[in-house]
Order: sequence, then structure tokens, then C-alpha cells
Amino acid sequence: MEKPSIPQGTRDFGPAQVARRQHIFNVIRRTFETFGYAPLETPTLENLSVLTGKYGDEGDQLLFKVLNSGNFLVKERRGEITPLVTAADLEAGPRAVLPKIAEKGLRYDLTVPFARYVAMNRGTLTFPFKRYQMQPVWRADRPQRGRYREFYQCDADVVGTDSLLCEAEIVLMMAQVLNGLGLEDFTIKINHRGVLRNIYQALGGEGKEADLFVAIDKLDKIERDGVSKELLEKGFSEPTIDTLFALLSVEGDYAEKLERLLAGFVTAGVEPDGLRPTATSEDDDDATFYRGLNELAEVRDLLQASGFRQFDRLEFDPTLARGLSYYTGCIFEVKINNVAMGSVSGGGRYDNLTGAFGLPGVSGVGFSFGVDRLYDCLESLNLFTETGETPTRVLLTHFSTEAGRAALPLLAELRAAGIPAELYPDAGKLQKQFKYADAKGIPLVLVLGPEELAAGVAKIKIMKTGEEKTLALSEVVAALTT
Amino acid sequence: MEKPSIPQGTRDFGPAQVARRQHIFNVIRRTFETFGYAPLETPTLENLSVLTGKYGDEGDQLLFKVLNSGNFLVKERRGEITPLVTAADLEAGPRAVLPKIAEKGLRYDLTVPFARYVAMNRGTLTFPFKRYQMQPVWRADRPQRGRYREFYQCDADVVGTDSLLCEAEIVLMMAQVLNGLGLEDFTIKINHRGVLRNIYQALGGEGKEADLFVAIDKLDKIERDGVSKELLEKGFSEPTIDTLFALLSVEGDYAEKLERLLAGFVTAGVEPDGLRPTATSEDDDDATFYRGLNELAEVRDLLQASGFRQFDRLEFDPTLARGLSYYTGCIFEVKINNVAMGSVSGGGRYDNLTGAFGLPGVSGVGFSFGVDRLYDCLESLNLFTETGETPTRVLLTHFSTEAGRAALPLLAELRAAGIPAELYPDAGKLQKQFKYADAKGIPLVLVLGPEELAAGVAKIKIMKTGEEKTLALSEVVAALTT
Repeated sequence: MEKPSIPQGTRDFGPAQVARRQHIFNVIRRTFETFGYAPLETPTLENLSVLTGKYGDEGDQLLFKVLNSGNFLVKERRGEITPLVTAADLEAGPRAVLPKIAEKGLRYDLTVPFARYVAMNRGTLTFPFKRYQMQPVWRADRPQRGRYREFYQCDADVVGTDSLLCEAEIVLMMAQVLNGLGLEDFTIKINHRGVLRNIYQALGGEGKEADLFVAIDKLDKIERDGVSKELLEKGFSEPTIDTLFALLSVEGDYAEKLERLLAGFVTAGVEPDGLRPTATSEDDDDATFYRGLNELAEVRDLLQASGFRQFDRLEFDPTLARGLSYYTGCIFEVKINNVAMGSVSGGGRYDNLTGAFGLPGVSGVGFSFGVDRLYDCLESLNLFTETGETPTRVLLTHFSTEAGRAALPLLAELRAAGIPAELYPDAGKLQKQFKYADAKGIPLVLVLGPEELAAGVAKIKIMKTGEEKTLALSEVVAALTT
Repeated sequence: MEKPSIPQGTRDFGPAQVARRQHIFNVIRRTFETFGYAPLETPTLENLSVLTGKYGDEGDQLLFKVLNSGNFLVKERRGEITPLVTAADLEAGPRAVLPKIAEKGLRYDLTVPFARYVAMNRGTLTFPFKRYQMQPVWRADRPQRGRYREFYQCDADVVGTDSLLCEAEIVLMMAQVLNGLGLEDFTIKINHRGVLRNIYQALGGEGKEADLFVAIDKLDKIERDGVSKELLEKGFSEPTIDTLFALLSVEGDYAEKLERLLAGFVTAGVEPDGLRPTATSEDDDDATFYRGLNELAEVRDLLQASGFRQFDRLEFDPTLARGLSYYTGCIFEVKINNVAMGSVSGGGRYDNLTGAFGLPGVSGVGFSFGVDRLYDCLESLNLFTETGETPTRVLLTHFSTEAGRAALPLLAELRAAGIPAELYPDAGKLQKQFKYADAKGIPLVLVLGPEELAAGVAKIKIMKTGEEKTLALSEVVAALTT
């Protein structure tokens, strides 16, 4: 017999792991709900017509495709059977065969299904629509440390408003979740696609915006020298690259960087965007009217007004670029500083996410937590509270069938009081029952021996300390609930 | 542009539905945990070698298979490309092609992955191992009312003990969940494969045990006449069929039926099984020593000792057969009586579930709730408490950007007190903001107009009654938390 196994890049989660993961989900869920985000769940299977073309060529490759059911090689209609896949298709390769045998795929992220849902239900939804979603996604990526083929995302998005309050609240939610998990040394990085565009303008705008952003995005990994080299190869001149790094390396706190970048833009002769930010000052003539910088200042003001106190953990980082092409406004990313791990959260504002599904011009902003990365951070920082292999708080032990039966009313009483409890199912050696409690991490063991039962008492042992107490049976529940 | 859609038999769950479904999951989870069951999660994708052959031929057909990633038509090794699928394979049909292009499938139930997990982790698990699992499963069944291609199961199983306490606790858990959901008119049916075997013996045992059970299983649907006809066709004689129905139609309460069946078996000359039930009386010579009847009596006694009070909802039903072949002891099924709906829960004891994965002889017992059916029952009985489209309890409204900003400290205070709250993101007409609260089912609206802000107060409106109160801003949180 073959030894059973699970597919590469997937995992079983045993009791202790599920309990820890639930802790993360609960902190995130509570935060999302406190901010008025409502839960949404979409199917695991989506039509490939919905998924394909949304994640770039590489994404299309990484989609898990599901075979059509039944005889997927033929089309059966009115008793007539026509072959779907021909030898010529085989010759032509997977691109020719695939559309004939698979029309469904596994969810690849939570953003596209959300956009599909909003477009499908536009008639009945009330906007602004705030939803959160915590579900697994699947990618046929090469598995490696910290990269799985099935992993969870937790997204919150609001669509149908361009209020910057939403951006400020994303920072508040990020901080609340990280604080709630006990992750104290974090940095929330914020930037704005408008700032990146202004930087591009400051360089003289040579029609290579995408090349520039791709290169900047790598600054973390390949540093200044690597980025310079790449930009030179792409045809950027050395003085241009010097200007770039002068702009990117502005220093100071959030407000100072905004000011210094503005000065840099003015020097470089960058025209203000002209786009009007929402809900901001009425002063149109303000020379500081650059959409990106202005919105970033507004977000900071809203945070201040909301009583946000962790500005030392919020960094305006003009080098933050984020890969996804659909972002148009503020962008976010979160790093846990004392762990070697990529970002645990990220997001941004988009202006046309639902456009691909026939609903153009719906602005929104959203962000996502990577639960598996948060888990790994919490684990490497030893921040999980001890979790046993069972929810059980009390094990009732017994020596005989009769004693076991006599324990049943107490067992029912404990459970009715909401205390997870078990009676060891088989009568037998006390040692075995204690070993069971120990292996499962059950904190309390009640011993109901013949003497105890005769006296109407139970001996209770606290496993961690070894301490023992004798209690009247009628007092046990009260003693454990107070 | 094609209108976006979701695959047949799958569903989106909007906010109100997710909230209701979470209510069901929470009641089940709390119950399972109170009884000491620990959570387990297994991957969505399982190797087809694990899934295939476990659910019968029909089950194999209904498995969703996932295409191998990359170029699934060829095998690439050391730069050499060999075609995997040939024109001859196409000719031979899906059975020839499938194993070459798909090695993974979607989880079909929670039992097989559980058995696979236990077998894979036998070395590290502590037995008895009690796990619960609440995850979706997928079946390529023809979708119809109440039958979906993606649906949730909630299973609890304990393996590594044959104590009948586990069976009694399944009845307790079933009742606790149904009571917890407010489903009052239910019947928990219980039977025992040993009783069915004794009935078969009473008919003279003609080597058609499976035929008999399959026919009995249909009694609900095709009634006595239909079953008789089917058995006649299968070669059972008329007197045999009369004996069968005499046995199956014993009447009375749980205890009376046990007695009357016993009398029937004795009359028919059925030999006691000889199998010794666990944890029961030491009196081997007892003439009532039929394993099935005896264990059913024992389960009832354990329930009595546990303070179970709903014996009017527990029915010993000798006609209960259950389809699955792996059951060997007690079997269970739950019906909600005042709703036209199949069973919402079922289960039973098995002696060799992990045998297929190389770990024979591990007895266990488990059961499952169908969440989608429970949902439909609760909905048709109007048992869901009103759920809005949002978790938000309070909407803060405002007329201007300044007023909105002035509301931010109160918003932060509400959230810090754990009250889900929102500030309408855009300043504007009050009517629009009230409409938003109404459409989303937000119960409270705070009005922060210019007068209110000047006076340091807020007007609070209870949406359901239209009642309005004026509160000092400093009193709002206290008023809402008490």
C-alpha cells in the first residue's frame, strides 16, 4: 500500500495550529467588524472567464484549473457524441486543449471575486459597500519556505467612495490588528501613485513609467547600485538617475518628507497634477496642490484627529511602489521589523477594479493580511500563548465502569457551565489517563476514585504545578467558574 | 463584454447570509469544543490516490479533478520532452487520459481526509483522538434545490476507543446543537448494524445482506409496498418479507422496542452475536446478549445517567440503515420534523476507517452536520434573528468636512469600546446618510449637526422606533455600552 501523503505546498493544521490560526482570524475579524466592514464569502470555484487575464501572463500560468466533469473529452448533445479534443489539439499544446476540457479554476485572490461580486450585484448593493473576506486562495507556485499553494488572505475593501477617511482607517486597522496580536515593532509604509508620477515627471518623463516603477520596487532587494544599473540599461541617463535618488532619499518625519519632496518637485518644474483631492481644503490656489502629497498630508491629519498615536510606526516611503497595476492613489505595505519576512499586509486605492466586469468608474480602496506570514512572525517571536492539543479544560478520570457512570452528572454540569470537559472513555489505570491529559495539554484533572466517590468529593490536580485539592462534588463547577 | 457569473451549484454569501451561517458554525463549534473535540483542518486539494476508490464508482465520477500545472500534456525531464497523452489515449476515453493529466482532486467529504491524517500522524497523535472539522466539500453532482456543488460539512469523530460513552455523547451533541439553534421539533433516530444483522439472521440469511439493507433504506421513500416488491424481485420469499415487516414494525418506546425485537429474534431462533460490548454488565450468561440491542440499551442508560431529558426526541428505529458501507455499530440520523428536508445530521461507528491507509483496527465513531440544510431549515422556520447587512451598530452622520472631522474622536472612542461604528465617509445630505443606515440595517444613527456640535451634544435616533434622544458627547459611549 502506498503511504498516504498530501499535495506539495499544502498543509494539514492540527488542533494547536488551528487554535493559533483562529486567534489571528479573530483579531482581524473583530477589527474589520469594529470598522463596519461586513463579511462576504465567494465560491472556491470561479469560471476561468472571470479569472483569466486578471493577474498577468504569469498569474494565468499559476491558476489551478479544474477538469470539466463527466467525459471531458467529448460533447454529448441529443445522443450525438462529438470529440472535443483532437490529435491536432494535442499537437498544438495546452493552450489549444485547455479551453476544451476546463472551464473552472480555483480562486487566486480575493480581489477579483470581490469585483465580480460587486458587478453582479450592483443593483441590490448599497454604496459605499464595505466588505471583508477571509478565505483561502490557491496558486500553482513552486513551494518554498513561507510560500504555499493553498494559503489564506484576509481582505477588507470599501468601494463607492473616494473619501480619504477610508485610507486613514486602513492605517488604523493595520495598527489595531498588529497591536492586537502583540506585534509591536512594525512599520506601516505609505506612498501614493501620484507621488511616483510626480517623481517620474521630475525626471523629464521619457515614456518609461512602468520601467521606472518596476526598478524602484526592487530597491529593497538590489539596492541603489542594482536599481541604477537597471535604469541605465533601460536608457535612463546618469543625471536623471541622480535626480531620482535625490528625490527618493528625502529624509525626516512624515511631514518633513512631504515638504522636501514638494520642494524637489517645484525645483524640477513639475506641474501640479490638477486632480482635486476629496474632502480637503477649499484653497485651490495653494501652491502645494499636488494630489499625491496633498492626500498623504490629509491622511495624516485624519489619523491625528482620530487619536492615532503610533506615528513613529507610520512611514511615508516615496520608494514604495507595489507591484499591482490597478492602484491609482495611496498604497500601503506593512513590515514586521524584527523578523526576516516579506510584508504581512498591503493594499491601496484603485479607480476601476470592477471595470473588467462591466461596471466602470467605481473607486475603492482595500488591503489584505497574509495570515500565514503573520502566523510565522508570531511563532518566531514566541508570541502565541500556550495552546494545548484540545479545548478540554478538565479531564475526569475513573477506575471502573461504575465510577465512570457516577461521574456523568458532574460532566454534564461542567459542560452546561460552558467548561469543555471530558470523561476518559475507558475505565483503567490512572497513570494512562494522566498521561492522556498531559499529552493533550489538559490543565486540570479530576480524580474520582472509590474513596472520593464514597465521600462525595473529587480530588483536583493542577497539571502545571502538581498542586492537589479536594472539593465536594457539589462545589466543583463553582470552583472552576470563579 | 460577457456578463460575469459563478459556476453552477456554487453560491456567493453576502453579509447577512455569512452572519447567519456563522451563527450556525458557532453553535456547532461551541458544542464540539465543550465535549472536548479539537479542531482539525485539511487541505482543499488531496491526491487522487487518496480519494479514488473510497466513495464507490459513483463517488469517483463526482470527484472534481484538478489539472496538473504547467504543460500537462508532456513530461519534461533533463530537457527531454515526451508527450504524455497520445491520440490512442483520446480514443480510449477519459479513463486513459485522466491519470496522465490530473493527480489532485477537491475534498469530497471530511471523513477520508481525517482517516488519511490519522494514518499519516499515527506516531505523534494521542489516542483516543477527538477531532472536529468544519470545511467545505465539493461534488460534481447535478445541482438542484438544496443540493450544491460546494457545501459545508461539520464533522466530529473520535478514534481509538470503543467506549459507548462516545455514542451517548453524539446524541447529547446532536440535541445540544439543535436546541442551541432553536430547532425544537426534531427526531434523533438511532439503530445498530448488529440489529440489522440480527434481522437478516431472523430471515434465514440468504446471502443477500446488502440487497436487504439497500431495500430497507428506501422504506421512507417507497414505503412497504415498494420495498416488498423490490425484495420479491431479489428473490426473498413472501413469508420472509412478512417476518421482516413484523420485526421492523415493532412499536413502543425505546425500551419496549428493544424488548419486542429481542422476543422476535428469540422466536426466530437468532443466535446472539457473541460479540462482547464494551463497558457493560459482567453477566455473560444473560439471554439478552445480542450486541446491537445490548449496546443500544447501554447508550440509553448512559444518556439517562448524563441527565438527558429529551427521550421523546430519541427514537430507536430498526429501519434506519444508512448508505455508507463502513459502519459497523450504532448508526444515527436526525430529521427536523416540521420541514420538508432530508436528514440534517448522521453518523455511526466504524471499525476500520483508517485501514485503507495502512492503519487497521482503529475503532471510532463520528457524525456530521449539513450546514446548508440546517440553514434552510432555520430559514423556512423563521428562526434566524434579524441580521443586518453590516456589523455596524452606530452610524455617525455629518453635514460638512469639519463636522466629520470633529466626529472622529467619538468614532475612535466607540470602536475602542468594541462597538462597531462608522462615520458616513462623504459629507452631504442627511437624508442620503439615513437611507444608507436603513438599507444596511444599522440600528442607531447619531446626528452631529452644527448646533449639536456647538452644544457638545449628539442626537441619537433609534431606527426601528424612530425614537430620538439628545446626549452629551461625553455620555454617548456609556449610554451605548450599558
